[in-house]
Amino acid sequence: MKSEFRSFASDNNSGVHPRIIEALIKANNGHAIGYGDDDYTRKAISKIETLFGPSASAYFVFNGTGANITGLLAATYSFSAIICSETAHINVDECGAPEKFIGCKLLTIPTTDGKLTPEAIKRHLHGFGDQHHAQPRVVSISQTTELGTLYKPSEIKALAGVAHQNGLFLHMDGARLSNAAASLGLSFKEFTTDCGVDFVSFGGTKNGLMYGEAVVFLNKSLGDSYKFIRKQGMQLASKMRYISAQFLEFLTDDLYLQNALHSNKMAKELASRIQGIPEITITQPVESNGIFAIVPPAAIEELRKHYFFYVWDEDKSEVRWMTSFDTTLEDIEGFISQLKQALKK
Amino acid sequence: MKSEFRSFASDNNSGVHPRIIEALIKANNGHAIGYGDDDYTRKAISKIETLFGPSASAYFVFNGTGANITGLLAATYSFSAIICSETAHINVDECGAPEKFIGCKLLTIPTTDGKLTPEAIKRHLHGFGDQHHAQPRVVSISQTTELGTLYKPSEIKALAGVAHQNGLFLHMDGARLSNAAASLGLSFKEFTTDCGVDFVSFGGTKNGLMYGEAVVFLNKSLGDSYKFIRKQGMQLASKMRYISAQFLEFLTDDLYLQNALHSNKMAKELASRIQGIPEITITQPVESNGIFAIVPPAAIEELRKHYFFYVWDEDKSEVRWMTSFDTTLEDIEGFISQLKQALKK
Amino acid sequence: MKSEFRSFASDNNSGVHPRIIEALIKANNGHAIGYGDDDYTRKAISKIETLFGPSASAYFVFNGTGANITGLLAATYSFSAIICSETAHINVDECGAPEKFIGCKLLTIPTTDGKLTPEAIKRHLHGFGDQHHAQPRVVSISQTTELGTLYKPSEIKALAGVAHQNGLFLHMDGARLSNAAASLGLSFKEFTTDCGVDFVSFGGTKNGLMYGEAVVFLNKSLGDSYKFIRKQGMQLASKMRYISAQFLEFLTDDLYLQNALHSNKMAKELASRIQGIPEITITQPVESNGIFAIVPPAAIEELRKHYFFYVWDEDKSEVRWMTSFDTTLEDIEGFISQLKQALKK
Amino acid sequence: MKSEFRSFASDNNSGVHPRIIEALIKANNGHAIGYGDDDYTRKAISKIETLFGPSASAYFVFNGTGANITGLLAATYSFSAIICSETAHINVDECGAPEKFIGCKLLTIPTTDGKLTPEAIKRHLHGFGDQHHAQPRVVSISQTTELGTLYKPSEIKALAGVAHQNGLFLHMDGARLSNAAASLGLSFKEFTTDCGVDFVSFGGTKNGLMYGEAVVFLNKSLGDSYKFIRKQGMQLASKMRYISAQFLEFLTDDLYLQNALHSNKMAKELASRIQGIPEITITQPVESNGIFAIVPPAAIEELRKHYFFYVWDEDKSEVRWMTSFDTTLEDIEGFISQLKQALKK
Repeated sequence: MKSEFRSFASDNNSGVHPRIIEALIKANNGHAIGYGDDDYTRKAISKIETLFGPSASAYFVFNGTGANITGLLAATYSFSAIICSETAHINVDECGAPEKFIGCKLLTIPTTDGKLTPEAIKRHLHGFGDQHHAQPRVVSISQTTELGTLYKPSEIKALAGVAHQNGLFLHMDGARLSNAAASLGLSFKEFTTDCGVDFVSFGGTKNGLMYGEAVVFLNKSLGDSYKFIRKQGMQLASKMRYISAQFLEFLTDDLYLQNALHSNKMAKELASRIQGIPEITITQPVESNGIFAIVPPAAIEELRKHYFFYVWDEDKSEVRWMTSFDTTLEDIEGFISQLKQALKK
Repeated sequence: MKSEFRSFASDNNSGVHPRIIEALIKANNGHAIGYGDDDYTRKAISKIETLFGPSASAYFVFNGTGANITGLLAATYSFSAIICSETAHINVDECGAPEKFIGCKLLTIPTTDGKLTPEAIKRHLHGFGDQHHAQPRVVSISQTTELGTLYKPSEIKALAGVAHQNGLFLHMDGARLSNAAASLGLSFKEFTTDCGVDFVSFGGTKNGLMYGEAVVFLNKSLGDSYKFIRKQGMQLASKMRYISAQFLEFLTDDLYLQNALHSNKMAKELASRIQGIPEITITQPVESNGIFAIVPPAAIEELRKHYFFYVWDEDKSEVRWMTSFDTTLEDIEGFISQLKQALKK
Repeated sequence: MKSEFRSFASDNNSGVHPRIIEALIKANNGHAIGYGDDDYTRKAISKIETLFGPSASAYFVFNGTGANITGLLAATYSFSAIICSETAHINVDECGAPEKFIGCKLLTIPTTDGKLTPEAIKRHLHGFGDQHHAQPRVVSISQTTELGTLYKPSEIKALAGVAHQNGLFLHMDGARLSNAAASLGLSFKEFTTDCGVDFVSFGGTKNGLMYGEAVVFLNKSLGDSYKFIRKQGMQLASKMRYISAQFLEFLTDDLYLQNALHSNKMAKELASRIQGIPEITITQPVESNGIFAIVPPAAIEELRKHYFFYVWDEDKSEVRWMTSFDTTLEDIEGFISQLKQALKK
Repeated sequence: MKSEFRSFASDNNSGVHPRIIEALIKANNGHAIGYGDDDYTRKAISKIETLFGPSASAYFVFNGTGANITGLLAATYSFSAIICSETAHINVDECGAPEKFIGCKLLTIPTTDGKLTPEAIKRHLHGFGDQHHAQPRVVSISQTTELGTLYKPSEIKALAGVAHQNGLFLHMDGARLSNAAASLGLSFKEFTTDCGVDFVSFGGTKNGLMYGEAVVFLNKSLGDSYKFIRKQGMQLASKMRYISAQFLEFLTDDLYLQNALHSNKMAKELASRIQGIPEITITQPVESNGIFAIVPPAAIEELRKHYFFYVWDEDKSEVRWMTSFDTTLEDIEGFISQLKQALKK
């Protein structure tokens, strides 16, 4: 195993932040009641509820797909429809889990930047009460999006407005919620609860945790029977304290924010180096920790001999590079240097 | 949080073995490709395949319910039926996950000791080809059982024989598979593969891991498309290396076995102390790390002020006490002392 | 095709009542809007609502399994459990449809007569609020039962009482509801709505219709979104008028009752003849249109050369004979005569 | 109920062909074993198998949604994806039944004419073997399409070619399969089996039946366990003979074809009258029994006072008019006359 090597493939290729490791070691002390009836869990939940406001209720799950699917199940009927971007993680990266587990139809919207707009979702806001049509019930947005872009609070508010007017909930897939907070310079509450978001998948794994995400219900009408859904959904950890202890540390002294600020900063740094390279075109605004760029195919092939990363769109020769909480300036320099060599070949 | 306190509530109330913590720290080094395409995973899978024989193929998941449900889904159709004991974890402790996710009917069998027999399962081996009836497809047994009892290899072979003769698979829920190996003095292969078991849920969490279980297919006709089922089943870890690194350590120098041997030994020890107490009747043979006993209700109430544990059967005043890899003789002495005091009140 | 031959295999082996055929012919006039927005449907629903009381709301579906499953889905969550007799149609004759489509666990109760009692269901009324356990949500009874027995109004009231006290609904699978009404000498309302039944599968096919059943919600809190469940459940007929026209006729001038009275009477008649035969033991009280009897195996084999019928319990040599709206005294005489011959061989 | 009135709303608003009614009356004779074990069913299935070729195996179900969903379930895994047109019935008119019952993802393709092309489906033919992606498994086309258009045999062959090359099945939703046969002047076999179609939903209801459709598997590798899927899918009729008797008549002396030829002819007739009206633009080629046309909104509103029909696209002011087996020239004249009046207002 290549020691200390850091790629730009994904923020989930990174390791675990040292403070999180420390927290795990500290939590490893004696016995604790399983399934969440322990002090770590109570304290971590309380922290989350503080950050999202008093209406929040939080539950820990194993992973992001689990958070999205079980959370969405709590807000839908099997005959519901969920409106999302064509690029949404729930649509393209969960192997049909929404359809299988929720039974719902996803109504997808093509976008250039991964962001929904009130105008775009209106296209699917029809057929209410028509028994032949899956009934729109949730608008799901990703913050930050799968394309590294960001919703402004005003944009979220506008979407919540249209959703609520039509009797729909607004869901936020926040696998990278901390990166959004860091980029916006806002608290979680300010761009979720205060903007009308009804429930959130709050991610930890991509920002320095080992495993663990939270489903956070902000709308009091949701979540009452969520604990059954979580268990039936295979997302209830027996040794829950080890997820909770991670979140407790994550939310102490703004670790989540420091990690995200650093990761975002490294993305800007990487982007600034790339902008100087004429053969490469950055295709999305760099608003968090992801960079999308068109790179000559030969250079992609050459560079992948040294760094693993994903080709986002084969046809366009577009790649995705992600920075992480542990990305260093040296990593970037090494990468850029290799990239430049690859372009020469 | 009460430091260093150890209860007898459940082996999942225990912490993580120090060697596992060390392994996690060591694995926390640089980046690794996500979703299992890393060296830790390859090595851990290879270890498992060695222990179960060359026909085995192994996949890591988050938890025991996940292992059972996704494994069973790989072996069934929605119109299948799964035969299991009334006390099976899949029947009573998974909040309907088999029905929801697999769509299958569970055909349950009342038992006194949690164990199925060829005679007992024959009751459900009918209706083959009848379109009105869910079609029996899997016999699922727990080794060790939820009542702490154990199948002998000859018993497993007999069940596999009947299952296979009727075109069914034999599944083993091995949340405590290591305790079974320790108690039987046999390798995994000897009481799974060699006895005709077709697939196994191989547990780690209850025996000293932080989280993580494995689905192990022993029958070559199973598992081909399991990776899609795992992902759709929300059980694919992005930072997979941290589950794999735990299993790698677990299976190195017989850590899994040492933990289980100790845990089983502590149960025998605890049982021997209890047998001297006339007010208490042990109700199941102590064949692994669980003790079931009838205790006067008043004593239960008093004892639970000091120790959390589960009342197994309210009507019978029957409790369950579990030992763990970290149980000490002092723990047992303290518990017995408190129990005796409770009985005096 | 053997003309005018009538067996005692099942009331669904019978044909369609001539008045129903006439009603179908009459309804076959011009165009009607599809999916239930037609006058036949409005009138038939209104008839049903009159018969069950003003709280009733009724919806037509294709068949009995469809009525049970979609009705139950409207009253449950996926983490719910449904308590029913081991012999319930939903448990043994629907090929796992409840598990697949509702996602629910069935909690079954062994009975001798197919009838649940408050005492018996209490065994499953626990684990409320425990996230590991499927949450009891519905008690489902069959009226008449699959064993031809009948609940008295007082028995239904008692079950409804226990169900409601524990927050459960009471469902009645009324595939043979008319036979129950005929046998009890009561209106539908008197032994459903007035006894606290929350929703009913009201059968037509087994009592002289060609196809078509109704889901009738009696509890106002149920059924609001049922129309979506029906469509998603593949149970929405496009040419709905042909189901509705059948029900309209069925409920006019008590055709449903006349058919059921006749069928029940023929069962009594058949039973009285059988009681005189010493080799045969009737095993269930003959309370509707079914007779269960232990018959020597050789006689069963011989008789089945002439009449198709079901062996209910191979081990006990127990058979089921059903009478129908079109059974005649001659049919009975012919059958008894053949039966006696079979016994002689 | 308005007698003898015929609209142009839908071919399922029409009644039942007199010969079908006669067949139902004739089938109503004595008892027949339920669930398909009767001579009507055997004969009808044999007719279907003759028409589609010797590889065909046929099963009757209640309705079109049932045929599509249960047929598709037989050909897929829950992690499969089904490629279809955005306008496909399975996508827009089944209230999410595919997602709920199959668990599959629908990958939809925007079209102008409702028809898929090899080029268009290639967009979704990727991600094979990638565990994050639902695995493409079926291409589903409608013949005729929901827009009244028609695939030529060469087009079907080309789609089958691409599907098969990529390991996918080709499914045909033939709710209006007879109209396609009539329009193409070909036997069913020639544009299904001979073109590589793997399974078909063969519709009867929209072409003169009361109820009933067939699932026809043409690929021998499909359908083995379909009978369990049909029952679990709530689509198994107990009095099956009444569906079978309809199909038997339908397929005798080409009734299906006569009905469809007439219906198609009436559509051409209606279209030819409309083409003379300058305010109206026909938007799709009239290749079967449907006409799509842009009509001034005021005229739509006026005309709907007299005739019920569907507005297909509110934004474009586009309506759908369907002819039926019972449409007469007088109906068309009456309709055109009313339409002209509506345009004057």
